[in-house]
Amino acid sequence: MSSFPPNPRVAWVGVGAVGLLYSASLARAGVETHLLLRSDYDAAVRDGITVRSIKGDFHVPPSALHCHRSPASLPPPDLLVITAKTTANPDLPPLLAPLVAPHTLLLTLQNGFGNEQFLSRHFGDDRVLGGTAFVSVHRIAPATADHQNSGRIALGRHAGPPDDRTRAVVELFKRSGFPIDLLPSLKVGRWEKQLWNIPFNGLGAALLADTSILLKSETGRNLVRAIMQEVVALARADGVSETDLPDSLIETKIHYTLKMGAYRTSMQLDREAGRAMEIDSIISSVLDLSDRSGVPAPLIRTLQAQLNTVEVNRVSHP
Amino acid sequence: MSSFPPNPRVAWVGVGAVGLLYSASLARAGVETHLLLRSDYDAAVRDGITVRSIKGDFHVPPSALHCHRSPASLPPPDLLVITAKTTANPDLPPLLAPLVAPHTLLLTLQNGFGNEQFLSRHFGDDRVLGGTAFVSVHRIAPATADHQNSGRIALGRHAGPPDDRTRAVVELFKRSGFPIDLLPSLKVGRWEKQLWNIPFNGLGAALLADTSILLKSETGRNLVRAIMQEVVALARADGVSETDLPDSLIETKIHYTLKMGAYRTSMQLDREAGRAMEIDSIISSVLDLSDRSGVPAPLIRTLQAQLNTVEVNRVSHP
Repeated sequence: MSSFPPNPRVAWVGVGAVGLLYSASLARAGVETHLLLRSDYDAAVRDGITVRSIKGDFHVPPSALHCHRSPASLPPPDLLVITAKTTANPDLPPLLAPLVAPHTLLLTLQNGFGNEQFLSRHFGDDRVLGGTAFVSVHRIAPATADHQNSGRIALGRHAGPPDDRTRAVVELFKRSGFPIDLLPSLKVGRWEKQLWNIPFNGLGAALLADTSILLKSETGRNLVRAIMQEVVALARADGVSETDLPDSLIETKIHYTLKMGAYRTSMQLDREAGRAMEIDSIISSVLDLSDRSGVPAPLIRTLQAQLNTVEVNRVSHP
Repeated sequence: MSSFPPNPRVAWVGVGAVGLLYSASLARAGVETHLLLRSDYDAAVRDGITVRSIKGDFHVPPSALHCHRSPASLPPPDLLVITAKTTANPDLPPLLAPLVAPHTLLLTLQNGFGNEQFLSRHFGDDRVLGGTAFVSVHRIAPATADHQNSGRIALGRHAGPPDDRTRAVVELFKRSGFPIDLLPSLKVGRWEKQLWNIPFNGLGAALLADTSILLKSETGRNLVRAIMQEVVALARADGVSETDLPDSLIETKIHYTLKMGAYRTSMQLDREAGRAMEIDSIISSVLDLSDRSGVPAPLIRTLQAQLNTVEVNRVSHP
């Protein structure tokens, strides 16, 4: 595969809150940015992308974006960034196939485990990168994002340690203005994100309670801690060391989340809106590891059952 | 203690949905009925009690009721029926004390474990009866109840097997028109109610999901079953036999609840309205037994933690 060009063409698929924030940040920096859009197409073509951000609001005009309704008009990119909800994964292969040229790298910034594996099965594992966005951002209107907190991305290569192309993508993403970390192992980054996602997305959606409610009482903090301890135990069973994912990260994450104030996670918002929740990628994927390794995770298993129980009530349209 | 009179004076304290339904049913049958009321006082004095019921709507005029704002005006009754929320128990002793004459029997129809013990500590255990109302009823307006399902009451004596007075109270309650069972052991009746209350009140309030959502999927039904199995195991540890509380009751209760349709339990309604939930009497009381007996109840314990976690968000006024 060829090296990654200095001025790459970047295409985004599944542009929700995360996609809007980072694509707009890169487009603002002069990166050739293509967006495959559905419901946001009209707004983006007419008005561009608007970002309200704790780092300062900004606006990217339509002239700085290439918007597409269909893959047919989108020229094969050097980098294809996937920010779709994982519940849409079954729809991705036919959508992405026409966009993946021999030189195209794929970067998934989706939640949970299994996304790199999914892309690898369909497009070959040597072109797959993964990343974790530690960010609080909501889509508040078509082509409009509200960035509330943080924004660091941790990036890594799926099939092995970082190579030159991985480092080139990291350099590219630094132009977004956000801190971008190069992960020696993508797995470690995924587990760090899961350490947060499983308790806060899981409990938040099951109990319909934002982060400030979950952490207000000692009971709540202990419940979050106990779930995080299950996540760390599963990470250890997956070969992640104390050095890479220290136990102390539990208190660090709780402390950081307390400072965030009242935050409703994406899974809670999805349940409230009657949308499909990312139960499989965020919750069930780690329970597969529990089954294989024999490391118990009773609280996460209960959360899975509770979430699958209330999932039946979602609005039937996708 | 004297025998129970054929035409007793009955007083009701903590008149919510359950209290409205049964007091009105007995008043309609000519029983001398006294109600200690707060927010419903004006409506009851002006309009009496209105019951919308699957068994036929009915109305009890003010002339058939004795309404009181304070215990001071209420003459000591032969039977004092307590239908208050258990979260109000700390307020009961000073409220009840002026009403408890030497001959007064106390009957608690409250939820969960611990209520008979609580009354016994304050008023002596020989006067305490307990009962379980298997009923779906909501208070939909002041002095107005909506009776949706069932209505059987199972009654028993706290301190031992039924005596003549217990049988007399059962006969009295039969005048309500509802099926009234005399329990050889009150404990068995409590456990039967808990078998339903713990999964449906607990999960309903934690997940904000009505009974039809909880039972719609196989996952949901299995979650309810697993919690019920924990309840049965705890009942066994409490000396309740398979004969008194058969394992098959689990499927019977699920079958019956499926037929009820979408029902929001009182604990879910309390959480939604920002009122205190009956976590202690319905959930925590059985976990005390788990602690003492060593019989594990991990799902109920998780429910307790989840409910206590979201309880912090209730509206601060009582």
